Parts: sequence; C-alpha cells; structure tokens
Amino acid sequence: MNDDKSLDELKSQLLKIHHLKDACAVLSWDQETYMPSGGGSARAEQIATLQTLAHDALISSETEKLLGAWVDLPTGHLLEKTQTALLDSSQALIREVWRNFHHAKKLPSDFVNTLERECSLAQQVWIDARKKNDFFAFLPNLRTIVSLKVEETDYLGYTDSPYDALLDEYEPGSTVATLKPQFSTLRPRLVSLLHQVLEASIKPNQALLTQSFDKTKQIEFGELVLKAMGYRFDHGRLDQSAHPFTTSFHPNDVRVTTRVFEKDVQSCLFSCIHEGGHGLYEQGLLPEHYGTPLGEAVSLGIHESQSRLWENAVGRSRSFWKHFFPLAQETFPEQLRDVAFDDFYLAINHVQPSLVRVEADELTYNLHVMVRFEIELDLIEGRIHVEDLPEIWNEKMQAYLDITPNSDTNGVLQDVHWSFGAFGYFPTYTLGNLYASMFYDQAKQDIPNLEHGIAEGNMLPLKEWLNQHVHRWGRQYPPEELIRRVTGQDISPEPFLNYLEVKFKELYGINELNSM
Amino acid sequence: MNDDKSLDELKSQLLKIHHLKDACAVLSWDQETYMPSGGGSARAEQIATLQTLAHDALISSETEKLLGAWVDLPTGHLLEKTQTALLDSSQALIREVWRNFHHAKKLPSDFVNTLERECSLAQQVWIDARKKNDFFAFLPNLRTIVSLKVEETDYLGYTDSPYDALLDEYEPGSTVATLKPQFSTLRPRLVSLLHQVLEASIKPNQALLTQSFDKTKQIEFGELVLKAMGYRFDHGRLDQSAHPFTTSFHPNDVRVTTRVFEKDVQSCLFSCIHEGGHGLYEQGLLPEHYGTPLGEAVSLGIHESQSRLWENAVGRSRSFWKHFFPLAQETFPEQLRDVAFDDFYLAINHVQPSLVRVEADELTYNLHVMVRFEIELDLIEGRIHVEDLPEIWNEKMQAYLDITPNSDTNGVLQDVHWSFGAFGYFPTYTLGNLYASMFYDQAKQDIPNLEHGIAEGNMLPLKEWLNQHVHRWGRQYPPEELIRRVTGQDISPEPFLNYLEVKFKELYGINELNSM
Repeated sequence: MNDDKSLDELKSQLLKIHHLKDACAVLSWDQETYMPSGGGSARAEQIATLQTLAHDALISSETEKLLGAWVDLPTGHLLEKTQTALLDSSQALIREVWRNFHHAKKLPSDFVNTLERECSLAQQVWIDARKKNDFFAFLPNLRTIVSLKVEETDYLGYTDSPYDALLDEYEPGSTVATLKPQFSTLRPRLVSLLHQVLEASIKPNQALLTQSFDKTKQIEFGELVLKAMGYRFDHGRLDQSAHPFTTSFHPNDVRVTTRVFEKDVQSCLFSCIHEGGHGLYEQGLLPEHYGTPLGEAVSLGIHESQSRLWENAVGRSRSFWKHFFPLAQETFPEQLRDVAFDDFYLAINHVQPSLVRVEADELTYNLHVMVRFEIELDLIEGRIHVEDLPEIWNEKMQAYLDITPNSDTNGVLQDVHWSFGAFGYFPTYTLGNLYASMFYDQAKQDIPNLEHGIAEGNMLPLKEWLNQHVHRWGRQYPPEELIRRVTGQDISPEPFLNYLEVKFKELYGINELNSM
Repeated sequence: MNDDKSLDELKSQLLKIHHLKDACAVLSWDQETYMPSGGGSARAEQIATLQTLAHDALISSETEKLLGAWVDLPTGHLLEKTQTALLDSSQALIREVWRNFHHAKKLPSDFVNTLERECSLAQQVWIDARKKNDFFAFLPNLRTIVSLKVEETDYLGYTDSPYDALLDEYEPGSTVATLKPQFSTLRPRLVSLLHQVLEASIKPNQALLTQSFDKTKQIEFGELVLKAMGYRFDHGRLDQSAHPFTTSFHPNDVRVTTRVFEKDVQSCLFSCIHEGGHGLYEQGLLPEHYGTPLGEAVSLGIHESQSRLWENAVGRSRSFWKHFFPLAQETFPEQLRDVAFDDFYLAINHVQPSLVRVEADELTYNLHVMVRFEIELDLIEGRIHVEDLPEIWNEKMQAYLDITPNSDTNGVLQDVHWSFGAFGYFPTYTLGNLYASMFYDQAKQDIPNLEHGIAEGNMLPLKEWLNQHVHRWGRQYPPEELIRRVTGQDISPEPFLNYLEVKFKELYGINELNSM
C-alpha cells in the first residue's frame, strides 16, 4: 500500500508551516547565543510575525480542506477511507496534524501574536531582572504572561483543571489527575532517602569539583563526550548561552548549548551530556518525515527522558567514569591527578539540598519540580497572586528542601520558563526521570553487556537502541503507548525510585537496619 | 501635518514583508558563519519558502489596495491627494514602495521560478567549473541565464538600452548613457597614472605584509578599528566567513564578517574596515523607519561609497596610520617593530595590475570593473556570444591592465555574480568609488581639521557627518539627488581621479616633468 501521493498536497502545506517554525527556531537560537543586545525588540517582532504566519497557515482554509479529506474536523475521528486507504503511520500523521490544527483553531491570531511578542520581550527583561536580583522589574511582564496563559486555557478548554489544557500541550495525555498520584508516591520516598543520605557518615568532598578548571578545556572535554555519545557535529553545534538548551532546524542541523564556570567543572560537562541526550533524539528523527509530525519529538517528557537517561543513568554512573575519569585526569592533571576514582565518583553524586534546580542532584531534583508544579497550579487555578511569588517560592523551598533562597536570582527568578510562557512544562522534567529509568532498564535487558561496553567508552549501542526504539517513531505513538511498546509496562515511578534507592544506598553505605 | 495614521495599514503590511526578509537574512548569515555542513539543503528550502511568502505578500491584493489609495498603479504617479495630504518623506515612501511593487508585478511568477531554478543550478556548476578551470562546463548554464536576463529586460521595459532595465534594479536612475561618459573619462587617466606608477623608481616592499600574523590578534585589531570608526558592537557583531559581507536585520542588529589569513595582514583588516563602512550605513538608518523604504539603503552604489570611503580614503590614508601604525606595532611587535612608517604606508598602497578583482588595489580596481561592464553590455545588447567570453575577457584584460589571465579560473570564471544572474551589478562598484570621493571631499570642507582628528584616532566626526548627510535619509532621495544635496554637484569622476592622482603621484614620487 503506497499512500505517498495522496498525502502530497497536505505534506507540502505542512512543510511550508515547518519552514516558518524552523526559521523562528533559528532566530531564537541566535537570540540566545550571538545576537547583540540591541537586537532584542526587533527580533521579538520578527519572531511574532513568523509565528503568526505559521499559525495562520495551520488554521487556513487550505489546511482545513486538505485535512478534512481524511478526518472529521470537529471530532478528530479518522474517516472510513482513511482507515482503509492509509498506512498506520499515515493515519498517525493525520491524527497528529489534526491535534495541532484543532489546538491552533481554538486560539485567535491576535491572541497568539500578543502572547509571542510579550514572551519575547519578557525574556530580555527576565535576563536583566535575574542579573540584578530584581523580581519586581520582571513582575509586570510575568503578570501579563500569567493572565495570557489563563486566557489561553479558556480558549483551549478543559474538563477538570485549566492546568490540564496547558499540560496537554507538552505531554499529550498527561493531566493533573494522573500526575498527582505519581508525585504523592515520589515525595515521601524521596524525602526519606534524602534524610538517610544526609545522615550517612560518608560525606563527599565537593571541593574536588570547584577548583579552577580552564574554560576552553571544559568545552573541549564536553565536545569529546558528545562525540562519544554519537552526537554528530556535522549535523550540529555546541555553543554557549545563559541557560543551556537544544534546538533543531532539521535532523541534520540540531544545536546544543552549555554554560561554563571556571570554578565548577560539573556545570559545563553535565549540561553537554544532558543537552546531548536531547540532541541525539532530534538527530535521530527521520529526515524523510521532516515537516510532518512523524518527524517531530512526541512530548517534552519523552524528550527529557533522553537527556536524563544520558545525564544521570549514564553520565553519573560508575561505568561511564571508568572510561572517562582517566581522560578527565589527562585533561585537568593539576586538579585531578591525585584524586581517587571513588572520591570523584562520590563527589559527582553528591546529594545536597540546594537552591538552583538545574544544578540539583538527581535525588533532590524532583523536589524542585514539585515546588514549581504546585506554584503553577495555584497560579493558573487562581489561588495565588504573581506579586507574592518570591515569598511563596521561599516557603515551599523550605518545606520541601529545608533551605531558603538568599536571593530571587537563585530563587523565583532562576528559570527561563515563565518568561516565555511555558506553564505546564516543569512536570515533564519529572516524567522524563520516570521514563528514563523505564527505558534504561529495558536497554540493559536488550543490549548484552551494555554497562561493560560503556566502561570501555562504547556508548554507541545505547544510542542506536534509542534511535531504534524511541527516536525514529517521532509522534507515531503517544507517550504512554510508546512506553508500553518499548518496555511492556505502564508509566510508573517505581523503576526510578528503585534506581535511586539502590544507587544511593550503595554509594552512601546505607542499609535499612542502620536507619531504623 | 501628521500623516502617520493614514499610512498605518500600509506600514504594517510592509513591516510583515520586512520581517520575512530579515528572517531570510538571519538564516543566510547563519549559513555563512555557524551552520553545520549537514544543514545546507534544508536551509535552502527554508529560505525559499520565506522568500516566496515575502514576494507573494508584496504583490498581494492587500498591498495593491493599500498602495492604490495613494498612487496610480499602472504609472506610479502620485494621486492628487497624496501630494497635498502627505509629508514629502511619506510621498517618497509611497514612490519607493510602488517601485518595488511594480517591479515585482512585472515579472511573471513562472519566469521568476525559472530564473531562480536556473541560477541555483548555475551556481553549483560555476563552483565546479571554476575549480576545474573549465569554462565550457559552465557555458550552457551561462547561456541560459543571459537569455533569461534579456527576457527579463523585456518584462521590465526600457527606453534606450535593455541593460538600463537591469542596472536600474541596483542603481536607480543610472543608465548606460550616464555611465559611458564617466568610464570614458576614467579609463585614459587611470591607465596613464598606472603606467607612471609602474615606471616610478619607488617600489613598495610587499613582503612586510605577508609575514606570519597571529589570527586572533588580527581579529582583535579589526575590532579595535571598527570601534574607533563608531561601529556599535551592542548593535552588531564581527564574525568570520569565507567571503566577507555585511547584513542587517534592523539598524540595531547589523553584522559584519571578515576572513583571516595568517600570511596576509591586509585581508582581515581591510575587510573589517570595508564591511564596517557598510555596517555604519545600516546602523545609521533610522529605527523609526524600519520596515519601510525610508529605513533602507538607497542603492548599491551609495552602499559601496560608504565601504570604499572608509576602506580607501580613510583606511589607506597617512592620517589613519599616524594613529594606528603605533598600535599595530604594539600588537605585532615582532613583525612591525623595525618597520618604518613610510615603508608600511607604501606597502598598503602597493599598485600592481593583477588578475583578480577582489584583490585589486584602488587604482586598478575600476579597470577590472570596466572589463565586466563592457562585456555585460555587449552580451545584453546582443553584440557578442557567450561562447566567446574567455577570449574577449583575456583581450580586454590585456588592453586595460597589460596582463593576460593564465586560466579561466583567474579570468572569466572568477566572479560569482553572473552565476546568480546579477547583470548590472558591477558598475555600482565604480560608482561607489566616485561617490566616495565626492562625499569625502565635502566632509573635509564641512568638518574642521577632519584629517588631523583622524591622525589622533578621532573618526567619530566623520561617522556622524555620514549619519547626518547620507545614512539617515534611507531611500528618501534617489542616488543622484542625494549626491547633489550633499555635495552641491552632479555625479562626476573628477574628484575620484583627482584624489588618485594626488595621492599616488606623491606616494611614488611622480611629477609631470619626469614623466614627459
């Protein structure tokens, strides 16, 4: 069955829309990496125009006509002929295009234009406010954005919580109702494990990692690791930005960024590995599906599972460092020559409640996410006010992590997300952790001697396994179904909790008897 | 009289078109500077989509309606009410928008598509043919392009020469009839001066400039000069690319590039100054006119006048180097410490007939341009055949520059222009030189002690004079009128010839008695 021809017109329309979005992505990448400071406001306008054109093309009568030939537009049900004439993958394509179409149809063009412009402006203000520890400089922008996001939930519609409307954009199928039990399971066991770790007699020597490390060499080491992961530099780049990110303009042009601090060797390296995980996903999408949903990542949670899998399950594992520690010692001889492997390994797995999410260890990380999730939920459901955020933030940090921020820079202003209106995004970080453990457990079953290979620097079998089982499918299967297909199981926090408990009890010499 | 409101709708349509073009410019800048090799083919498609959208928006019924309210669309005559109700600047805006609209409307989209496709094919063939010194591999493509450009002149219309239709695209108001007398005046005096220079006993020592110069320091020195010129780095950047260029996405985001060769200190520096001149023009356009023709450079000739003025009249002057030579010696002590000022100054003003235009000195440069202009004119007016070009080229090079190319690679195949159909572009290089001398003479009259100031590193009065007299007008006045307003004179080759004769006779110790 060859249905290529019959979808040609629709695909060419989708391609035009994708070109506009990719152009936006290039403009945004440039904004975060190389754009001179004066370029900000014109750039916001340019991006807004392209976004509007993409939005208009998606909801145009042309798209409506081409899509309506395959699907019942009001309900999204595939027509009879679609189910008989099209391949499964093409049916999935139609389903996902309809998802985009239907979502966009609900948002008026004026609204989309305003939101994009406000977000682009807010990012510049946020950068400045964060630098100056001045939440109130950012307050008017944030207030505008929150009110626009609430307006958005009205356009989008929802059954239970308005937050579901936002969440669904990032993690199709996920809701407040499905998240809450997962967080309820996670929280007590994370807090309990955290306390055991903090009470353990084994104490990592963090000072190893905060010596002076030459910045250029840090970048070079990051590049070395990215190459070993299979990240292709002829199809990508590594640059620096205030907040590390990954962006893609095509599977053959996928860019990652990192940031480098002389006195913190972890930040650059683990950002490289983390973004490299995202980058491999984007490089692993099939070029023949470029422009269509089958050539796009399926959800932020699945995306995050790729970065977390590489950053933590691989990058903070004993096996990984068996290969890379000697190379790190060669690169930074003065700093690492006399450091014992176990001390280094313990230091990079140091668990300590801290202020900044992106620098949090893998145990406390999800507690940071819960703080944000609860605040977002309360904001969108209208229970709290934007101007109270610094106080609320600090109270929650104290409650979850036993620590209170010393500044808004390291508190409520630390994340870029709200400045671009990404409410509903944070929970996907935790979902990513859950998925990562599920995928990695499966990879260990499927790939003989996986961790022995990694200990010899051979990470390509893992990359290829992920290409095969996760990346190449694009949006063909929704997250829940993809996970079931790959692992045979439903989404659950158990594999992740099990991974953490085994790893950290071993590392910190904790056994249940001692802690009773 | 405030006509702002009545033009709002038209301006907002123009802004949308400009945003698309600026996005194209960002994508192209990225392609030339940072894009990974794999990104090329997707990028070409993305740019093509944006260009088509911009073109379609320009000739849309929306633009037609908004513009038709002010101008008689078939003739371009401003309506009665336009002349009474609008400011002069707004009338100019309407005139220039109509110019764009009318030009785009005259070319059938089938023709535009064919031309674009043929040019795109021809560029690939040209790159290959140039590499292999194989003109006849390129011949069929070039023949097609010439015949399409002749066809284009029929669509565009002309009074005297079909070449006028092509020239007008790059230099509004310029015609074969106005160019010919200028070139006729230039040629004998340039050739005579060249012969005097070559017969002079003073011989520059070029070897000074081809020692090893650290590339990073070359870039830093280029930045230093750009800053001293008044080029704003908060509104711009300097990067590297295979061929130096300037691009703008808004007056507050104007980027220049250079290229760096370890064994040639001139290339990076003079590219910085040249592109810096272009960059100052773009940074000097008024942000309040962004999106409209009043916020755009008026012509390629005026643009080139800015780069040439800075590169040659300033950057190759004694005054400039009085300030910068000691700094260059500090930057490159090993290479320049023991070099005498006069030897350095003579070396950077070395005159020598050579094969390649882009490496030519300021005296011989225009002879290269004349070769191309005459060939283009004969081709478009149908007096010569494409297959005879290598022979014709070599004969003309011999006649003008006393030198015959040793290959077509360094001869008829050297320039990219013809492969993308840019016939009519070359003369603007020479016009730029003529305008530059006229502007600089006027600046010297208007700014007290201009060259004394430059000798002390103070170039900002010149930059501000150019901002005030040239840059800020955008396309309000056509080139000829702009020049008359600034200098009180008509376009003439005299100031340029006078500049060259005074400079090079002094430099090479030529006096008229000796040469009789």
